[in-house]
Amino acid sequence: MRLSQFHLHTSKETPADAEVISHKLMLKAGMIRKLAAGLYTWSPLGLRVLRKVERVVREEMDAAGAIELLMPAVQPRELWEETGRWEKFGGQLLKIQDRKEAWYCFGPTHEEVITDFARNELSSYKQLPVTWYQIQTKFRDEIRPRFGVMRAREFLMKDAYSFHLSDEDLDRQYRVMYDAYGRIFTRLGLGFRAVFADTGAIGGSASHEFHVLADSGEDAIAFCEGSNYAANVELAEALAPGERPAATEAMRTVDTPTQKTCEDVAALMGVDLARTVKSIALMGQHEPGAPQFVLALVRGDHAVNEIKLSKVPGLADYRLATETEIAGHLGSQPGFLGPVNPKRPIRVVADRSVAAMGDFVIGANVPGQHLAGVNWGRDLPEPDVVADIRNVVAGDASPDGGGTLGIARGIEVGHVFQLGRKYAEAMKCTVLDETGKAAVPAMGCYGIGVSRIVAAAIEQNHDDAGIRWPSAMAPWQAVVCVINPKNDPAVTEAAEALYRDLNAAGVETALDDRGLRPGAMFADIELIGIPHRVVVSGRGLEAGTFEYRRRDAAESENLDRTALFGRIDARLAG
Amino acid sequence: MRLSQFHLHTSKETPADAEVISHKLMLKAGMIRKLAAGLYTWSPLGLRVLRKVERVVREEMDAAGAIELLMPAVQPRELWEETGRWEKFGGQLLKIQDRKEAWYCFGPTHEEVITDFARNELSSYKQLPVTWYQIQTKFRDEIRPRFGVMRAREFLMKDAYSFHLSDEDLDRQYRVMYDAYGRIFTRLGLGFRAVFADTGAIGGSASHEFHVLADSGEDAIAFCEGSNYAANVELAEALAPGERPAATEAMRTVDTPTQKTCEDVAALMGVDLARTVKSIALMGQHEPGAPQFVLALVRGDHAVNEIKLSKVPGLADYRLATETEIAGHLGSQPGFLGPVNPKRPIRVVADRSVAAMGDFVIGANVPGQHLAGVNWGRDLPEPDVVADIRNVVAGDASPDGGGTLGIARGIEVGHVFQLGRKYAEAMKCTVLDETGKAAVPAMGCYGIGVSRIVAAAIEQNHDDAGIRWPSAMAPWQAVVCVINPKNDPAVTEAAEALYRDLNAAGVETALDDRGLRPGAMFADIELIGIPHRVVVSGRGLEAGTFEYRRRDAAESENLDRTALFGRIDARLAG
Repeated sequence: MRLSQFHLHTSKETPADAEVISHKLMLKAGMIRKLAAGLYTWSPLGLRVLRKVERVVREEMDAAGAIELLMPAVQPRELWEETGRWEKFGGQLLKIQDRKEAWYCFGPTHEEVITDFARNELSSYKQLPVTWYQIQTKFRDEIRPRFGVMRAREFLMKDAYSFHLSDEDLDRQYRVMYDAYGRIFTRLGLGFRAVFADTGAIGGSASHEFHVLADSGEDAIAFCEGSNYAANVELAEALAPGERPAATEAMRTVDTPTQKTCEDVAALMGVDLARTVKSIALMGQHEPGAPQFVLALVRGDHAVNEIKLSKVPGLADYRLATETEIAGHLGSQPGFLGPVNPKRPIRVVADRSVAAMGDFVIGANVPGQHLAGVNWGRDLPEPDVVADIRNVVAGDASPDGGGTLGIARGIEVGHVFQLGRKYAEAMKCTVLDETGKAAVPAMGCYGIGVSRIVAAAIEQNHDDAGIRWPSAMAPWQAVVCVINPKNDPAVTEAAEALYRDLNAAGVETALDDRGLRPGAMFADIELIGIPHRVVVSGRGLEAGTFEYRRRDAAESENLDRTALFGRIDARLAG
Repeated sequence: MRLSQFHLHTSKETPADAEVISHKLMLKAGMIRKLAAGLYTWSPLGLRVLRKVERVVREEMDAAGAIELLMPAVQPRELWEETGRWEKFGGQLLKIQDRKEAWYCFGPTHEEVITDFARNELSSYKQLPVTWYQIQTKFRDEIRPRFGVMRAREFLMKDAYSFHLSDEDLDRQYRVMYDAYGRIFTRLGLGFRAVFADTGAIGGSASHEFHVLADSGEDAIAFCEGSNYAANVELAEALAPGERPAATEAMRTVDTPTQKTCEDVAALMGVDLARTVKSIALMGQHEPGAPQFVLALVRGDHAVNEIKLSKVPGLADYRLATETEIAGHLGSQPGFLGPVNPKRPIRVVADRSVAAMGDFVIGANVPGQHLAGVNWGRDLPEPDVVADIRNVVAGDASPDGGGTLGIARGIEVGHVFQLGRKYAEAMKCTVLDETGKAAVPAMGCYGIGVSRIVAAAIEQNHDDAGIRWPSAMAPWQAVVCVINPKNDPAVTEAAEALYRDLNAAGVETALDDRGLRPGAMFADIELIGIPHRVVVSGRGLEAGTFEYRRRDAAESENLDRTALFGRIDARLAG
């Protein structure tokens, strides 16, 4: 592609309304242009990148045995009523009335349509297993569309759906798709993690999310460097630490007149925050024989995990205790609470780490006072419940025993679910099994946010000058820049030859023949993130060299033709 | 592709609600499945064909210098109000309200969006000319969606838009796109015609439609076998025939007691229908000096063309005359009308052919009587107006002098327009020209109904057994059928080898390893229209031959491997 014949339209201005770097850079590079809230036109440059992602996704889906089809964007209300999602899906469902006043929606996902397709197409177990996929435009009416194509309303998605006679076969294909997802993100050159996930609104059982790792990611992920373990921080299990140490101190009172947080108390006392314990006062359900008032304890340097807390028996619908309830049970006020000597019976739920502490610091139930040197069994009874009720933190042991956990931030770009029989049952989709009996197939569903990947890749790969595309996603692998094309025919000729030869060698190369000044030209090429830049100039030709620079290199080098080809593609070096 | 791994789902039943053959065959072949009125899922088989069309379209657009981008399906109302089309577009525009009660539409076309894109992207004449295109999903809320994907509501379209500083440059690109369209339909292997067209709702000046020729087509096209001339029958000019012959007969009255039509009169009299003249009584506008009552005359074997008639001065808003008006002016009743001796002054508008007639037959203005041997100038005055007011018929001279016209039926699959400055002006899209002045660019727009082409190709290419795909559109070029794969490992092995080798030789080949009985297998392969079928059987292997049959051949042949490869692809023969 000659850039003079291509519509490249970069901008020096930093867009005012773009909050994240990928949105800023996509606008500056001219990859997208906003049409309305959450609606973007993909410019020729942007579309080149989008298509590269699409192609890798398609190739890996085909390789995984999935068969491509294409379902309509517009879906009739009747199908969504069969699964109850016409109401349940919520405001993200864009509802449409046609000229005959029949209701439709702009599909945000296609479980209903594919299950309808399946119940018409499938009649026998012999047709199973089957996995269908499409790469298709979806719409979700986000209440606050933002971050450009990261959270757009109209977006491009790959969604796949599999049908199986048995749960075991669903498990097998789930693993096949899981592996295919790994290959997709690896081929795209992205740092990613597959994490255990909550199944959310789609429903079902097993589920993994695929996250592109980036500091700006909305989700926190716990992962083990030494193994494949990864999970959303909220779902990752915090293991019990080692044995509880023996008491070495006597319990004593410490004056903490204004110190209401563990941080302040630890600072005042000059002790490690990990020696302190936080008390959270809750009201649980009425259960026979157990006080309704609960004190949940986590270490001062840990955070309570509400999902885990709600899984403790009696706490499914817990709420925070009121100040009156706290005063009634503990005779104290928030900031100085603790499980030692309550006024009335309470239930103590200790995190595993807290249960393993000795000589700890905790509120004294007296305003302005904490207790230090506290020990279980000696100064207060053993906890009523010991459970995992905190978020994991970096340095925790990995639940799979593979080492210690790190915490990273991620952008969700893929999701695989085992849906089970929820949709097939609701929509009466059956096949005849080997014995001639009608059987409801088990389903899997597998999504990838194709357009979102483009933004996520930029979040992970950029610098001050612009985007740094991984090779597989770059609009072109290389650009040949011509300096002063009009003044020196030899330069133009050499650049044309190089452009031709690189393309012939399989390196997708553009020719920057726009006649810009070098500074403006190089700024554009860096902004749009081309991995390899070659400059052809009169001076270089005299010396028999080209000026070569990798997008991620600090300096350029003068290379002869053979060295240049070798540098751009190691496969071409020999 | 192994068909055992592909979801092929044909049906023997003829669908009840399918009216046209392409719709029937696409359902029977399992290419599409209806989701709701005018909404279809493209099955894996259907999508393979759709993608082939898409690829040819994309390649030719790229070759024509058009640059691909991707615009949203959902478009904001505000843009459509700038051009006045929010109201004017009519019921086909699917209007949508989002959760914030803002109005959008599901784009039926993208003139507004591209012009908005252009006014933001383009600032200088140096960026012109530019042609952008997309292959994207559109929605038109047809009042009566039917014929399957031929007239669906949601469909796949290629739409391109070009921007130019001058009308001459628009003309140039229009010709480039016109030629590209020709190459597209030629490569797809379709019989087609480019025809002059009315510009319809999109507006603008020059315009051609591209029609795939098929007997079931909704549009009648006049075309010249000896030249490139083609036009919609309603727009094709009917030339004046030769000189008017001299009178040879005296005018006489013929009794036609019950003969009210030219056909009946000609039959009664035993004369050629082309010797009779039809009179149509109309009321035109009040014009000074001209009677409002008009008698329009066309030859008995011709049909009046209402569009042409309305272009005669004074007939822009004509209506049919009432029986009272007819009696008042002619003293007769319909069936026996004519221009000879009216009761009151009338205006006679004669078709060119009628003005060139002598000794003709026409109503006598007396119930039950016609006149024969009528001649202009002698029996009645020369016509007030001589004009082209009829549809052309097969055998007419082509307006371009290239020979005689034929009439064919066609399915519109493409349309190119010169939009001019209508949209750019309405939306205030300007660029600075060479002199630094703001100039409104001229626009062209160029559409292809990608999904419709699939149906049109079937209308043109089918037989009793099913579809006969042109090579470029076939889901596979060839299928290797295995007879009794389970009983004879040598057959399976030979079939696998052939399947592998054909694909390696560049022939896209499927392997029918589904284990069906030969009859059912062959019926499927014929129904889905694969151009080349090869059967591998134990008997053939013994003889060292394969059974080969072209989809359009009456018989199969037994060929050895070399002959087989040569037959399937002449390029592989050597």
